[in-house]
Amino acid sequence: MTAEQASPAVTGNVAELTIGVLGGTGDQGRGLAHRFAAAGNPVIIGSRSLDRAQTAAAELLAGLDGRDGPDGAAGPDGRQASIRGMANADAATAADVVIVAVPWDGHRDLLAALAGPLTGKIVVDCVNPLGFDKRGAYPLPVDEGSAAQQAATVLPGSRVVGAFHHVSAVVLLDPEVPSVDLDVMVLGDDREATDLVQGLAARIPGVRGIYAGRLRNCGQVEALTANLVSVNRRYKAHAGLRLTDV
Amino acid sequence: MTAEQASPAVTGNVAELTIGVLGGTGDQGRGLAHRFAAAGNPVIIGSRSLDRAQTAAAELLAGLDGRDGPDGAAGPDGRQASIRGMANADAATAADVVIVAVPWDGHRDLLAALAGPLTGKIVVDCVNPLGFDKRGAYPLPVDEGSAAQQAATVLPGSRVVGAFHHVSAVVLLDPEVPSVDLDVMVLGDDREATDLVQGLAARIPGVRGIYAGRLRNCGQVEALTANLVSVNRRYKAHAGLRLTDV
Repeated sequence: MTAEQASPAVTGNVAELTIGVLGGTGDQGRGLAHRFAAAGNPVIIGSRSLDRAQTAAAELLAGLDGRDGPDGAAGPDGRQASIRGMANADAATAADVVIVAVPWDGHRDLLAALAGPLTGKIVVDCVNPLGFDKRGAYPLPVDEGSAAQQAATVLPGSRVVGAFHHVSAVVLLDPEVPSVDLDVMVLGDDREATDLVQGLAARIPGVRGIYAGRLRNCGQVEALTANLVSVNRRYKAHAGLRLTDV
Repeated sequence: MTAEQASPAVTGNVAELTIGVLGGTGDQGRGLAHRFAAAGNPVIIGSRSLDRAQTAAAELLAGLDGRDGPDGAAGPDGRQASIRGMANADAATAADVVIVAVPWDGHRDLLAALAGPLTGKIVVDCVNPLGFDKRGAYPLPVDEGSAAQQAATVLPGSRVVGAFHHVSAVVLLDPEVPSVDLDVMVLGDDREATDLVQGLAARIPGVRGIYAGRLRNCGQVEALTANLVSVNRRYKAHAGLRLTDV
């Protein structure tokens, strides 16, 4: 598609966007869903199983409940938090922006099956293709160069952005952490799309969205998560990155 | 070699170590040489050309001259800064710890030729295998996985550590920047060697040396320099990394 065919997502206010999270029942997906709902964005948890999606949505909503007293899950602008659960294809259809937080195993097939509903949308891939053994985590080879490039290959009609690779699910889900000390590296070849995702990242208190290159440079950003695993193990931390002088 | 065959480098105080910088006439090498000499470590600039090594050493020393008035290049402990220039093989022989800051093109051959003098030494590879085109920087494929793993392959008798990939030569060489806002990711399979290099990184004011994984996870750290190039271009910055929660 051309830049002129802007999706509604791009023309709207980032605060109004409905955010779908494919694989939203996993730790990373739930963490992001929690933070975007807390920021006031309508959120849809997607899963292969509608049941599991709805259960995760209800649990996350309950976690937000009562933040502001008896009125329940009121966001910073007074709106009620909204998290719904749907099957992945319905989530992809209903959302303005779709975050891909599925396991690497099955990433390609799941996205290929959703190419229809994802056409014209901004798709934010935050998948890290990692293996684990006794010595820790290590990057898996990816034919296309990165998970994000794989997404772009199987979703030629979507506007693929890579982002949110280094968020700690533990930190995102911790209600005792009001502000997250992290820069989100945002990668993509479509300036309008990366700008929007930078704005989305900034919806999470403490977070900055920083443009960090084209999709061809996403592989090392995904793989760097293996280094953060090593850092976390050595220092008993939930390490994140900040970019200095920016 | 086994851990029991510790090099003199490891048993000494990090402040006393003589640091050799192969490719020390390039920007990154000169920047590191400048900072280590300023910190009080004896430094040897290595180059293919003895002449160019000696010229670079003299220029760096002149840059440090007069820091503390008429006595010249006195370091923080009152010692005179020491920077000498040598041919690469002599620098490798004379130094306790050897930093590899050569161009990626020729990296393998240069190190293979120095395998003798580098035997038993800690070798710190800070080379980033990058290509550049109109769209910016991108990582080059490396058969061994990373420059550091290539170094380990051709230097089986050395203790190879990856570090100092993301330092900005401009910042390191700028006398107006007394403290460098940067964490140095230190990678390696030899705990004693990575500990020492972390200590070395901390000789540069403002810098922390953070253990960030084994050599098999060095490729993405090297490649991430391409992302910093993109960040620098977009934000007109000299971006560095900080690790949060550590």
